[in-house]
Amino acid sequence: MKENIDFKADTIFPAGEPLPEMLSKYFIGQAYLNMLTTTGVGIGNVTFEPGARNNWHIHHKGGQILLVTGGRGYYQAWGEAARELKTGDVVNIPAEVKHWHGAAPDSWFSHLAIEIPAEGASNEWLEAVTEETYNNSKK
Amino acid sequence: MKENIDFKADTIFPAGEPLPEMLSKYFIGQAYLNMLTTTGVGIGNVTFEPGARNNWHIHHKGGQILLVTGGRGYYQAWGEAARELKTGDVVNIPAEVKHWHGAAPDSWFSHLAIEIPAEGASNEWLEAVTEETYNNSKK
Repeated sequence: MKENIDFKADTIFPAGEPLPEMLSKYFIGQAYLNMLTTTGVGIGNVTFEPGARNNWHIHHKGGQILLVTGGRGYYQAWGEAARELKTGDVVNIPAEVKHWHGAAPDSWFSHLAIEIPAEGASNEWLEAVTEETYNNSKK
Repeated sequence: MKENIDFKADTIFPAGEPLPEMLSKYFIGQAYLNMLTTTGVGIGNVTFEPGARNNWHIHHKGGQILLVTGGRGYYQAWGEAARELKTGDVVNIPAEVKHWHGAAPDSWFSHLAIEIPAEGASNEWLEAVTEETYNNSKK
């Protein structure tokens, strides 16, 4: 495929719509969200354009599972090296761990985000990922 | 792709191993299971060879969500017509609903199976899907 052109057609699950402002304000670059279900377990399909990523954030009480369905990107937990992600990869994000995820600079990136149910679960959005931190992720 | 030949290479998530006997006895045909995670939410990648399907079964207490990642297959709830499934489809299976799922006769089929957590959740395996019922699913 030709990356960064009509990339939405190549996702396994429909990419959905650009993030609503209440979420996009915590992202750098353009990302898309398609909630596949909210019954029992919340599952969203998140698609990032090249270079797009979310801010550092924390899932309180319940963690989150990422299942990578296409493209190439990164996951980084605070104080650790970034991990490169590609199709088929699985990330278990424990509750209370500060982290970010997003696309590589030269590739779109799609993952399912599965919320681990927990009473009183919430998300805390923090500072943006700096260019320096992002650039250190590149491989 | 050429279906039914080396199909495991074409799944988004690794197909994993043939079902253990404790599960395969409730299936017709060959299927594969790869548990992607059991942390918080159980998520398995299930891949069926053409014609393979599971018996009628019921998820008690907690339901299950299917996310289709490749191929073509069916889902049928008791008393309803079979629903044809293809890449990107989502099925919410409520608790207590008798149902089966599996591949089309001429296509492999892969889906993620996401267990909705519930206290005291269990699976009840029932009778095999007859040839007549299976053949009525075909489109």
